[in-house]
Amino acid sequence: MRIVNVKDYKSLEEVRQLVTRPHLEQVEVSEAAMERTRQIFGRALTPQEAVAQILSDIERDGDQALLRYIARIDGQELTAEELFVSEAEFEEAESAVSPEFKAALAAAVANVRRYHQNQIEQSWFDFGPDGVILGQKVTPLERVGIYVPGGNAPLISSVVMSAVPARVAGVGQIIMATPLRGRVLDPHLLAAARYCGVDYVLKAGGAQAVAALAYGTETVPKVDKIVGPGNLYVSLAKKMVYGRVGIEAIAGPSEILIVADSSAPPEYVAADLLSQAEHDWEASAALITPSLGLASEVQKQVAEQLEKLSTADIAAAALERWGLIVITENLDQALELANVFAPEHLELLVDSPWDCLGKIRHAGAIFLGKHAPEPIGDYIAGPNHILPTNGTARFSSPLSTHDFVKRSSVIYYTAAGLRKHGPAAVEIANREGLSAHAKAIQIRLEGEIK
Amino acid sequence: MRIVNVKDYKSLEEVRQLVTRPHLEQVEVSEAAMERTRQIFGRALTPQEAVAQILSDIERDGDQALLRYIARIDGQELTAEELFVSEAEFEEAESAVSPEFKAALAAAVANVRRYHQNQIEQSWFDFGPDGVILGQKVTPLERVGIYVPGGNAPLISSVVMSAVPARVAGVGQIIMATPLRGRVLDPHLLAAARYCGVDYVLKAGGAQAVAALAYGTETVPKVDKIVGPGNLYVSLAKKMVYGRVGIEAIAGPSEILIVADSSAPPEYVAADLLSQAEHDWEASAALITPSLGLASEVQKQVAEQLEKLSTADIAAAALERWGLIVITENLDQALELANVFAPEHLELLVDSPWDCLGKIRHAGAIFLGKHAPEPIGDYIAGPNHILPTNGTARFSSPLSTHDFVKRSSVIYYTAAGLRKHGPAAVEIANREGLSAHAKAIQIRLEGEIK
Repeated sequence: MRIVNVKDYKSLEEVRQLVTRPHLEQVEVSEAAMERTRQIFGRALTPQEAVAQILSDIERDGDQALLRYIARIDGQELTAEELFVSEAEFEEAESAVSPEFKAALAAAVANVRRYHQNQIEQSWFDFGPDGVILGQKVTPLERVGIYVPGGNAPLISSVVMSAVPARVAGVGQIIMATPLRGRVLDPHLLAAARYCGVDYVLKAGGAQAVAALAYGTETVPKVDKIVGPGNLYVSLAKKMVYGRVGIEAIAGPSEILIVADSSAPPEYVAADLLSQAEHDWEASAALITPSLGLASEVQKQVAEQLEKLSTADIAAAALERWGLIVITENLDQALELANVFAPEHLELLVDSPWDCLGKIRHAGAIFLGKHAPEPIGDYIAGPNHILPTNGTARFSSPLSTHDFVKRSSVIYYTAAGLRKHGPAAVEIANREGLSAHAKAIQIRLEGEIK
Repeated sequence: MRIVNVKDYKSLEEVRQLVTRPHLEQVEVSEAAMERTRQIFGRALTPQEAVAQILSDIERDGDQALLRYIARIDGQELTAEELFVSEAEFEEAESAVSPEFKAALAAAVANVRRYHQNQIEQSWFDFGPDGVILGQKVTPLERVGIYVPGGNAPLISSVVMSAVPARVAGVGQIIMATPLRGRVLDPHLLAAARYCGVDYVLKAGGAQAVAALAYGTETVPKVDKIVGPGNLYVSLAKKMVYGRVGIEAIAGPSEILIVADSSAPPEYVAADLLSQAEHDWEASAALITPSLGLASEVQKQVAEQLEKLSTADIAAAALERWGLIVITENLDQALELANVFAPEHLELLVDSPWDCLGKIRHAGAIFLGKHAPEPIGDYIAGPNHILPTNGTARFSSPLSTHDFVKRSSVIYYTAAGLRKHGPAAVEIANREGLSAHAKAIQIRLEGEIK
């Protein structure tokens, strides 16, 4: 892991540049990926062009185009009848998973449910003078799509983290989409989907899954919102359909930032850095510390632990490109640099983590103290693990029940209320030159109130 | 206004198609608009291409490109020093507005502030067994941009509706952007900006304003989020910068839908339809009623009121294209059709509006009864007038303080908590094949707890 010292940079912003990822439209695509588009589309397309083509084909041709892209991209020959996981497949999955797994899943879901129940928004009313009643009506979304990436591992916890908050919020119907990798889906994934209250599982991934959920096809019902992380193609598709349907965010590769002082056990710091680095080659893992001693101990520990790791190849590649240790002048500067990074996951592995919490302004999830390794938040603690990445914690939030409801304003006026507030509204309407706006109020004030 | 009967359609969805607007990327551009791009860019560009060009030029060249586009598109020759409204300009505006206007503004701001204070989210903590503490930390955004369209009228109320919730939420700095139309901005607009707590007013409109706020230039600081409605170019620019900065939504033309029964005074219905129709040629205004008698009375009233309206040209054109009266079999069907429309503004001009409220699932703002004309909500009532359009009320909400904060999860674990919950996390990590995730927990459980 590369070590740098804040002193050698002009600003904290300049240090942050070391781990700033390219934005969605700037991602460079490998020659192999371009070659794949040549095979699929008959000519080399940029990721944007490929995704736009998939979206418009599926919007126009429905199932036929969806099945074609599932065959060409996911590599699965399906019929329309096979698009959704069948009851028999669910039952088979159910019987294939161990009691230990079921118990762990139940524990995770219980914690995630409890945490998200704290987020539930209530409709409210505010009673003003003159009988005026103003309010906010909160209504769950009717139908949402949750995307669960394929990738190397069955992301059981992604099912939990998207489906449970949707259910807690009261969503009417949940359709999960995930690509087949063999002819069947991992039984743990299906068992988790069923246990978390997913209604249907669509066997499709990538932009083709997003298109089917956003526009609907003969077989796939159109959803109101699509949530969940995905690869470049999924992210581009989500951004393109945004506005037709809701999306929660656009996710990039995973990140961990650990702020640690000399009290932190280096083997813990190393293990936690590796836990994010193993996600994929693009994952980033950084340590910020005022302790030179800790920095060099962590370097050694990372090397040692890497040797025994089954995912060492990926983790080593990620650390090579996106691993970073930053030495700061003191702890306060480390915390301020953490704000500049605005990381997805922030661990405060320091002697007095609660003293630091108030100074953190930008982070997706904050883990306090040495008994809170980041993976406990990925799986079991309760808070959501679908989090803002690449500095977007400056303006966005973890996935929550707030993403699965919408609000409507409610306005009830009495004749007395209108007499009192109407004239000021007429004054502003006239300044805006909108005479029909003024008239709609005046017609009520001038005539006999009906 | 066109009258149709639900009976003549196969489904409510088919009736809804009559007022469904084109999506952002489908909007057809006039030959005149294409000719303008020829003048500005040297070749005819689609709106997407024009916006992409403006964004990349300003990202690369900063002030220089910004000033060039302000000259070419907004038609204003400015220097970098003139980009922001000066203190002298603010003071001049202050002295140019009437006491009546100031009083109306103060009344509006007081109501809007009170309403939005009800939305404030508190940070919270949840104390579990074994000393585990989970929480959600709510933090205001540091810097936001609010866009106020130019257009035909100075949109004073748009300033109020975006700046006040930002201030209530605790945003650190507010930068408003609006295009100059003459050499000076309307004094009412500036007085409102100052009164609502806007810190800086950038004299720029269109995609160039969005680019400057999203990327920052030498003179314009980069913001975290951009909110507010705008024309096609603003909307396209907001969608393109989404992910780099936050945005609240993508707005389309204004809409009103009135559900009325035979108790509704036809002159009120007509006045309220016209109040939205006058917004612009693309505004839509619809009445849904089971009463044939009301429908024909409203038609007459609209024609009569149009004659006396100073904005009659625009309102008539809007009604010609997007005006609609739908006759339903009964009131319940009218309410269900309102849900299918999912309108920006919904008036329930019926005898028992509170009986209907529970049946409304999709609407931006709901106005109850005959004393609540929609313009009272535009200006003075308190709820936000920046609302989801074109059916997006199915999944999105009025602008609110929620748009100006973000949440961070907080996770504090004790050694006892980790011993209890750790093994389930390890089980799931192993099922996902993520051994370093498991290891980060095991290293703490296996060794001597530090």
